[in-house]
Amino acid sequence: MLKPEILDPQGQAVQRALPRLGFEGIADVRQGKRFELEVEGEVDQAALDRIHKMAETFLANTVIEDFTVKVEA
Amino acid sequence: MLKPEILDPQGQAVQRALPRLGFEGIADVRQGKRFELEVEGEVDQAALDRIHKMAETFLANTVIEDFTVKVEA
Repeated sequence: MLKPEILDPQGQAVQRALPRLGFEGIADVRQGKRFELEVEGEVDQAALDRIHKMAETFLANTVIEDFTVKVEA
Repeated sequence: MLKPEILDPQGQAVQRALPRLGFEGIADVRQGKRFELEVEGEVDQAALDRIHKMAETFLANTVIEDFTVKVEA
């Protein structure tokens, strides 16, 4: 997701459109990318470290984006 | 995220690039959108129903995408 201090024009465009579509009560909207990776073999610490490195160097632009790595069975 | 039966060229492009960048062991990559909504007031069932409707009619293209709504404090 874009870092909080980075302007998010896409999120703002969505937020401005919501009331016109009848959806009230949303104070802020942020839009970002989501990757689902299917890992071969066990997701042990080594695999997690590798995925974290992958996200940091390739999947995210860490100059403007924050990322989190979550394991889902 | 794109439905499983829908071709995901972006995800495939990422998956093909990973070994060239030295990242092995990833069987599949899917890429999609993520929205973070800040809700005014309490996130009760009514608010959740409203957000689910918002996602279904506006934030997701339910012809080709699945979506999940998660509450994070």
